[in-house]
Amino acid sequence: MELYLVIAIFVGAVLAIAFAGIMAKRVLSFDEGTDRMKKISASIRSGANAYLKRQYTIVLIFFAVMFVVLGAMAFAGLLTPYVPFAFVTGGFFSGLSGFVGMKIATAANARTANACRTGLNKGLRVAFSAGSVMGFTVVGLGLLDISIWFTLLKYVFNENAEGITSAMLTFGMGASSMALFARVGGGIFTKAADVGADLVGKVEAGIPEDDPRNPAVIADNVGDNVGDVAGMGADLYESYVGSVISCSALGVAAFNDQGMGFQAMAIPMIMAALGILCSIIGTFFVRTGEKAEQKLLLKALSRGTNLSAVLIAIAAFPLIWFILGESYYPLYFAVLAGLLAGVLIGKSTEYFTSDSYKPTKKLAGKSETGSATIIIGGLGLGMLSTALPIIIVGIAVLVSFFVSGGTIDNPQIGLYGIALAAVGMLSTLGITLATDAYGPVADNAGGIAEMSGLEPEVRERTDALDSLGNTTAATGKGFAIGSAALTALALIASYIDKVSKFTDVGYDSFSVMNPLVLIGLFIGACLPFVFAALTMDAVGRAAQSVVIEVRNQFKKIKGLMEGKADPDYAKCVDMCSRSSLKEMILPTIIAIVVPVAVGLVLGFYGVVGMLAGATASGFLMAIFMSNSGGAWDNAKKYIEAGNHGGKGSEQHKAAVVGDTVGDPFKDTSGPSINILIKLLSMVSIVFAALVVNVHIFG
Amino acid sequence: MELYLVIAIFVGAVLAIAFAGIMAKRVLSFDEGTDRMKKISASIRSGANAYLKRQYTIVLIFFAVMFVVLGAMAFAGLLTPYVPFAFVTGGFFSGLSGFVGMKIATAANARTANACRTGLNKGLRVAFSAGSVMGFTVVGLGLLDISIWFTLLKYVFNENAEGITSAMLTFGMGASSMALFARVGGGIFTKAADVGADLVGKVEAGIPEDDPRNPAVIADNVGDNVGDVAGMGADLYESYVGSVISCSALGVAAFNDQGMGFQAMAIPMIMAALGILCSIIGTFFVRTGEKAEQKLLLKALSRGTNLSAVLIAIAAFPLIWFILGESYYPLYFAVLAGLLAGVLIGKSTEYFTSDSYKPTKKLAGKSETGSATIIIGGLGLGMLSTALPIIIVGIAVLVSFFVSGGTIDNPQIGLYGIALAAVGMLSTLGITLATDAYGPVADNAGGIAEMSGLEPEVRERTDALDSLGNTTAATGKGFAIGSAALTALALIASYIDKVSKFTDVGYDSFSVMNPLVLIGLFIGACLPFVFAALTMDAVGRAAQSVVIEVRNQFKKIKGLMEGKADPDYAKCVDMCSRSSLKEMILPTIIAIVVPVAVGLVLGFYGVVGMLAGATASGFLMAIFMSNSGGAWDNAKKYIEAGNHGGKGSEQHKAAVVGDTVGDPFKDTSGPSINILIKLLSMVSIVFAALVVNVHIFG
Repeated sequence: MELYLVIAIFVGAVLAIAFAGIMAKRVLSFDEGTDRMKKISASIRSGANAYLKRQYTIVLIFFAVMFVVLGAMAFAGLLTPYVPFAFVTGGFFSGLSGFVGMKIATAANARTANACRTGLNKGLRVAFSAGSVMGFTVVGLGLLDISIWFTLLKYVFNENAEGITSAMLTFGMGASSMALFARVGGGIFTKAADVGADLVGKVEAGIPEDDPRNPAVIADNVGDNVGDVAGMGADLYESYVGSVISCSALGVAAFNDQGMGFQAMAIPMIMAALGILCSIIGTFFVRTGEKAEQKLLLKALSRGTNLSAVLIAIAAFPLIWFILGESYYPLYFAVLAGLLAGVLIGKSTEYFTSDSYKPTKKLAGKSETGSATIIIGGLGLGMLSTALPIIIVGIAVLVSFFVSGGTIDNPQIGLYGIALAAVGMLSTLGITLATDAYGPVADNAGGIAEMSGLEPEVRERTDALDSLGNTTAATGKGFAIGSAALTALALIASYIDKVSKFTDVGYDSFSVMNPLVLIGLFIGACLPFVFAALTMDAVGRAAQSVVIEVRNQFKKIKGLMEGKADPDYAKCVDMCSRSSLKEMILPTIIAIVVPVAVGLVLGFYGVVGMLAGATASGFLMAIFMSNSGGAWDNAKKYIEAGNHGGKGSEQHKAAVVGDTVGDPFKDTSGPSINILIKLLSMVSIVFAALVVNVHIFG
Repeated sequence: MELYLVIAIFVGAVLAIAFAGIMAKRVLSFDEGTDRMKKISASIRSGANAYLKRQYTIVLIFFAVMFVVLGAMAFAGLLTPYVPFAFVTGGFFSGLSGFVGMKIATAANARTANACRTGLNKGLRVAFSAGSVMGFTVVGLGLLDISIWFTLLKYVFNENAEGITSAMLTFGMGASSMALFARVGGGIFTKAADVGADLVGKVEAGIPEDDPRNPAVIADNVGDNVGDVAGMGADLYESYVGSVISCSALGVAAFNDQGMGFQAMAIPMIMAALGILCSIIGTFFVRTGEKAEQKLLLKALSRGTNLSAVLIAIAAFPLIWFILGESYYPLYFAVLAGLLAGVLIGKSTEYFTSDSYKPTKKLAGKSETGSATIIIGGLGLGMLSTALPIIIVGIAVLVSFFVSGGTIDNPQIGLYGIALAAVGMLSTLGITLATDAYGPVADNAGGIAEMSGLEPEVRERTDALDSLGNTTAATGKGFAIGSAALTALALIASYIDKVSKFTDVGYDSFSVMNPLVLIGLFIGACLPFVFAALTMDAVGRAAQSVVIEVRNQFKKIKGLMEGKADPDYAKCVDMCSRSSLKEMILPTIIAIVVPVAVGLVLGFYGVVGMLAGATASGFLMAIFMSNSGGAWDNAKKYIEAGNHGGKGSEQHKAAVVGDTVGDPFKDTSGPSINILIKLLSMVSIVFAALVVNVHIFG
């Protein structure tokens, strides 16, 4: 059976990559439109390329240093020799996922704009195909990396199940490090450009959004690609791979004694492969008649994702029954709990951030008394919106733990159940990411339509696509945040497993009344706050430098405002690049240094406390910041749609302030925290042997 | 020895109350000034009285209900018969502390304004004397309640040490419930009035602050008294009593086996009595020559608080040596660690929120690019400012635990050490609260000076006193926040002690990998977010109703703007009262219902997780919100002092938005969270027997 399972995993990976290739070909078969559109798209492309090249150069240095550090530790016997290599491949594939996504997105933007000249539906087809390339590249490369390492370790190096999962967790660390760089760097770039362009262009100079006279307009569009596309690609690669390998590791821990370690390890991988198949089937159902309205389009998208989810929900049952035997079939309900929790968190996100519901409508109403009240309202909304997801995740944990057969004295199989719930959530990532990633493509298409002076209805259509994307993105966010929490819990369990190999501690050794655990908990809970502060400040600083540059160009370039001279777009792109690359380093270093430092001082007790604290507070901060930001954004759009005075009113100005505060909330700090909480665990796991040997307390 | 100790505690309590009486007499010996001043002061007084009367009526209903609930539980054998009575006295004394503080503050405001007509130093004397009344009333009543119950239980009912501390923890719960009502209700009142008065008066009508034509101006001044004075009094009563009784309870747990339960229990009480003596001595050093500048005044205040701290640091050593014997003298270093931690957290607060330092100066600079950037900057500043206090508290916990002789396997004495650190922090509350509570008096004096049309230099002097108060308040906040975290930890330990009486669990039974503990941790961490959201929203709603009322009066009362007709002040006061009383109920009920609900579903495992999560995230949220709010406030003042364009500039407007957002942050949500985290523990302790018998999981 073993070999068949390995082949199945490979087949899933190859299928996804092949499907991504077909979709890419379809995207490229469309026309890029007028010369002006081609030219603008080319500048965006070259700006994004240039940025990513510089980002990868810096990341390369980081990976080289880490390779040496890990190599030295392997040499000292603290790590297996595979670790440094696994670390590097994880980073490589994560970066590659982002890169491919960015490539196709920058190829698809003008094509989407051009397709929108024909009709809404054609535009959706191009944009959604581009999103699919990204979605299936992420899952394909993820599963490919997993299966290659799996084959190598098992059949070439003859490692046992434990050795395999241990090496794999390291490439998770590589993937997470890369993802953090990409999310933080890209997030700072995109928001600095956005805020900079808006503050000077819209507010000071009074020209519309995406006006070609604005020197930061190309940087703004580049930002969408390097932040919302490349950053998101690397991010979700990390989530996907993280959930699978942490689940595999717990499977080995739970089932090795019964000689079923291999099977339990394989289940999340096979489920991922099956999920790819279900996602591909789902994509075929995303189509409508030529004259579809926006509502029907949304239905089409939902039909695709819902169908995929139902298919995997059905397929997971025989899978578990067949591989683990009938006595373990209750693990299936853990998968189901995960899927359901993901959907529900998505619904909660939608409820709190969409202007079809009360909270965001009420928030928009707070603009009547000025920007202070809309800020207070948005912060309150975000904080309040944490309660429901916490309860949903709590129930999911409870169900997946106890239903799987976990008990308080013997929790291993229950923890495996929790990890399976996370895999369940992410198994159809191929299609959910496709519906998520097409948003920035539509956004870019809108920018190109504006800059090329296309007919107003083109912009209307791209806007419709974009706002459609916002709704589907809410579901995607639900899965991303929910799976991050569950994966982080699984990783903490893996850490304890690892430590228990060296010492006599177990899952029950980390009482919150142990002062080391407790102080760790405090420090861990503090990390997301510090991380959010650093990334927000970074956006502020970077934006300020863009503001100054844009103001300068308006002053110095003669004839710019009259449309007689071109602004120096490249200078603004360069500005954003430089500051975001500079600013992304400190947060990432903190995420890597703090777990090691805490371990060296407070020992593994402190580390477990830190991980638990960071997971709890990180989950809360991520939801709070994402939802506050999303609600402000949509409250502004709601006002722009003609409510509370409409565009240009005092209320609108107040809402713009809210939206600007929300920008770094939802697109820089919030999503980075999801990566942070997993990276902390993976770093802790990799450095576990060191910490067990060297620590001051405990 | 026992009787001498009890007498010493009584003497401390009576000394404090007597000193408060002398100070009150001194305040009343000053003149209230002109007729107009008397009239204004009388309206503020009557407004504050009316509000408190209504607040106490509602609270009375709550206490009556709880009395019945607790009585029924006592009848069912789940509680001792003292519990319902202890609960009620705790609430009574906490409310009384706030009431006395409010009485003296409303008596002192006009007197301070009048004294400021003579000079700054005389003004300080009146205001500081009023603050002293409040400070020593709080500690006096606190220690009196403790000593009365102690005497009753020990000598009348012949309870053993365990029975004594158990009943005492219930009056802690009563005090905390009352404090939460007072803080939340008062906090909503004061900020609704403040925001309402500012938004319509300053921004829309363009009249200066404290202008008598503004219908909300009296409500604003009443708010200072019911929020910043009565609310703070009840709050710090709760902190003081909570730290002492939780420490006593842990002392019994740690020392009962050695027959020294009584001594260990008495130590925090004696230390509190000694602290009163040290504080009284300290107040005599708060004096300067008649022609003192502001800087010298600050020195005078610091001299008083520093001297008291040094005295108690010296006196604690022989105290511990003498009562517990020489082998336990290292517990002294726990006290020292607590004192030092309190001072350092205060310094950190000052660094992040005072405009003498870089962070707030930089924040003020962000007003150059508008309100969005100053909001982002302030949020970032607050989040970043959590790191240092977390590390300070972490070190204090580490030191006080291990130095006291605690070990991971046998933590009891170490936990007692942590609790002693909290008592150390609060032992000189008499004087630190005096330096804190005189601020609102000076603030009110400024309002009266403005409304009575006194010479501009009077207002300058009251402003100087007020800003002096901001600096000293930072230190006070450091002690309040730091002690809240340590006391909460001590209370969690007490909870486990209580549970261990019914079951076979111990301190080491609450591993974070237990899914019930984990889910509890998530829920607990979420509570401060929800609580902050509810209180912020409440301020927003209440403020909106004030805004509408003020707009109405401006429209309907003819001749108001010309100063020919009086506004209807009482209507605004009534408005604020009604909405704040309505809004204070839900948050308090949540704080009481959630721990019981979590216990009934997730059992005591879930409760311990919840308490740990709430303590960690509550500590962070309290610091974040207080410091963001404080920094915005001072950034605005920094701009008003003539920097970045000064008063009336665009930058100033941006800073006002920041300040308005910061108002509910620092004066409603932030301080309430400190109470919340302790109340959660006390409720859990009181309902422990019920939860142990009835729960779904665990």
